[in-house]
Amino acid sequence: MSRDTAFNQAAAALGYSFDGDIKLGGNYVPLARDGHHVYVSGQVPRVGDRVVVTGRAGAEVTLAQAQLAAKVCALRALALLQRSLGSLEAVRAILKVNVYTQSSADFTQQSEVADAASELLHAVLGPAGAHARTSVGVFQLPKNATVELDLVAVVD
Amino acid sequence: MSRDTAFNQAAAALGYSFDGDIKLGGNYVPLARDGHHVYVSGQVPRVGDRVVVTGRAGAEVTLAQAQLAAKVCALRALALLQRSLGSLEAVRAILKVNVYTQSSADFTQQSEVADAASELLHAVLGPAGAHARTSVGVFQLPKNATVELDLVAVVD
Amino acid sequence: MSRDTAFNQAAAALGYSFDGDIKLGGNYVPLARDGHHVYVSGQVPRVGDRVVVTGRAGAEVTLAQAQLAAKVCALRALALLQRSLGSLEAVRAILKVNVYTQSSADFTQQSEVADAASELLHAVLGPAGAHARTSVGVFQLPKNATVELDLVAVVD
Repeated sequence: MSRDTAFNQAAAALGYSFDGDIKLGGNYVPLARDGHHVYVSGQVPRVGDRVVVTGRAGAEVTLAQAQLAAKVCALRALALLQRSLGSLEAVRAILKVNVYTQSSADFTQQSEVADAASELLHAVLGPAGAHARTSVGVFQLPKNATVELDLVAVVD
Repeated sequence: MSRDTAFNQAAAALGYSFDGDIKLGGNYVPLARDGHHVYVSGQVPRVGDRVVVTGRAGAEVTLAQAQLAAKVCALRALALLQRSLGSLEAVRAILKVNVYTQSSADFTQQSEVADAASELLHAVLGPAGAHARTSVGVFQLPKNATVELDLVAVVD
Repeated sequence: MSRDTAFNQAAAALGYSFDGDIKLGGNYVPLARDGHHVYVSGQVPRVGDRVVVTGRAGAEVTLAQAQLAAKVCALRALALLQRSLGSLEAVRAILKVNVYTQSSADFTQQSEVADAASELLHAVLGPAGAHARTSVGVFQLPKNATVELDLVAVVD
């Protein structure tokens, strides 16, 4: 199974499509490339116009919902790479992933939230999806998103 | 207009000068260079000895004040690059910008805060100022700063 | 004195050993390497099975305890580099260090916490330990850790 097929299956499994425009505001870009390195901007779990998981993990948002948010963020990052590169087959490696979880004062499962994103990257990219990772609990995120994720990739 | 002139105009428009020493503590450096890549340390909106915007966005700090803070952080990062490289003309690209905003529990305009920094980078550097970006809302920052910003640049 | 000896002395001075397995969960790796660059995953102050400093700086955790946490995080990052490279002599430079401190609402000494990590990197690596740095105050961290630290290194 190609990675692009795996991506489509992962998105379909969550019931989301990333075919539409991926909106951005301001004087920044979704991906910045330098040679074989691509920096992907922080992604919130937005599908089309809607942020699909909002609120604070450990309060109104369960661990499972935060993990869903992390998966949607990872899918968005992959969608951007796919659109930019033509195919996810052009991804050689994911070097680093940062996962920011909007957390309640006593929510300490940020790693478990990030695991969902790591698993999705592995499911789509295979061994090339292995990455270094940092997971922290932040106080707020743009548009009240539950999770934000960015990454650095090596591409052909 | 050269970028260095654009920098001076942007600083003057805010009424700030970055001519003095840029203070640092500890065993770290304002910029770390590896080949053509420069990592700029996290900048708070300090001018001389004073952090000019402090406090929590969404509480005692308005969006407009937080945006000013983001611009000052971006100017400081540019001042460090200028001082290190001799001129901002040596900046080929800004790859990644991270913007951390000290936020109240319900302040969700971290992207709008970061937009001010992105606009300033574009105003000074032109198309080379386009960058990938991550914006999150943190609970506190050094010296009660409202915003902290770091970046990775590609230079000649 | 070799860097590996300096590392052992720094660990012994804190009374900790990093000889055992360094545990990781999920589909991510402790270090991701690309050419001469190594990204080290976010480290909490874990020794063996135990996170040795937990809680919120400025509340139940003092500055000195948070600084200890930062040193243990830095030692863990060095232990991972040492294990991967065979010796810390293979570290050419530390490019960037990010230090996340679990903070109370009015704790603003995140830079002082990070200084402890920077000093330890300098003590072990000498001038090669100088780095760009970002220090922020977050709301929570995995396993209630007081500090999390990640870094990017250049290696032989």
